[in-house]
Amino acid sequence: MTNALDDTALDQLFRTARTHNTWQDRPVSDETLRQLYDLVKMAPTSANASPARFVFIRTREGKEKLRPALSAGNLEKTMTAPVTVIVAWDQKFYDKLPVLFPHADAKSWFTGSAAFAEATAFRNSSLQAGYLIMAARALGLDTGPMSGFDNAKVDEAFLANTGWKSNLLVNLGYGDEAGLFGRLPRLPFDEAADLV
Amino acid sequence: MTNALDDTALDQLFRTARTHNTWQDRPVSDETLRQLYDLVKMAPTSANASPARFVFIRTREGKEKLRPALSAGNLEKTMTAPVTVIVAWDQKFYDKLPVLFPHADAKSWFTGSAAFAEATAFRNSSLQAGYLIMAARALGLDTGPMSGFDNAKVDEAFLANTGWKSNLLVNLGYGDEAGLFGRLPRLPFDEAADLV
Repeated sequence: MTNALDDTALDQLFRTARTHNTWQDRPVSDETLRQLYDLVKMAPTSANASPARFVFIRTREGKEKLRPALSAGNLEKTMTAPVTVIVAWDQKFYDKLPVLFPHADAKSWFTGSAAFAEATAFRNSSLQAGYLIMAARALGLDTGPMSGFDNAKVDEAFLANTGWKSNLLVNLGYGDEAGLFGRLPRLPFDEAADLV
Repeated sequence: MTNALDDTALDQLFRTARTHNTWQDRPVSDETLRQLYDLVKMAPTSANASPARFVFIRTREGKEKLRPALSAGNLEKTMTAPVTVIVAWDQKFYDKLPVLFPHADAKSWFTGSAAFAEATAFRNSSLQAGYLIMAARALGLDTGPMSGFDNAKVDEAFLANTGWKSNLLVNLGYGDEAGLFGRLPRLPFDEAADLV
């Protein structure tokens, strides 16, 4: 029987974890990014299609390429973050279904409807972004997700000729608590949920 | 300094966790569902907008209302799950921004563009579905997410007059390992990720 994780873990993942804006001078290794991917890849997606693609920007050159796409409010925290991940999706994610879901002709479910393929890729790459944020926190990293950027510029600067489209950005590093904003309220259960 | 969670926790959240199809005869209490929501609500969304809404179906009557909307492959596992969550989004999520994001007129960012509001709601309610799956696993629950159902029928049966739209379903319970399928492959790092 599986038990709940202890309070320290629930705090680290959910309760005391915060979206960070300033960062300690402490790098994130490529080894840590590979560990991160190895957690994220295991979490569930529709028909195991795994449409998300991840571009880990951790060089100065990469950050300068990203700069023109950032909104003013997201500029400084993103330029100073040790790593910024472009969470994208592969528009032809279904080409990998013969490997990822070999017991059915799942590819044909998507090749017949561009709208269904796009909705599936958008929904599931967003789910996978949620897994990325949780996996980063599980590894002791802090995160800063954002959608305030120019997707077309990111796609042109980083994703040309890949067939990938950007969904959101996530800063990764070890946050500096001094830079945190006050905690914002959340909706009470009865405004966001129902029991039937 | 925050450390990585231990291997037992990483296994429970990511590595050995599985999507379940058959369930132990063990209920999920309303108290557990409220604990689950209290974790999920803390995780980040764009402008703290928290667009996801959750309908927890745990009665026989509720399940029978859901039945006509389920695809054949998802029928038995969903009808037998102790709880099925409709993860939806509130189409007018921005009406709560004066409370959730009080330091800016964030509502006006969305009321001017229905397409931007819908993309934000779809992206962020999907992110929140990812948080729900991880929070459930953190509480020792097993999950079974799916998008193979008739959204219009779910919306009509459960969400009429709420302004909410269904995104995906997630079964919750304590899984029976005897009903697991074989583990499917995942994409290697170099096919899904890039370091720049």
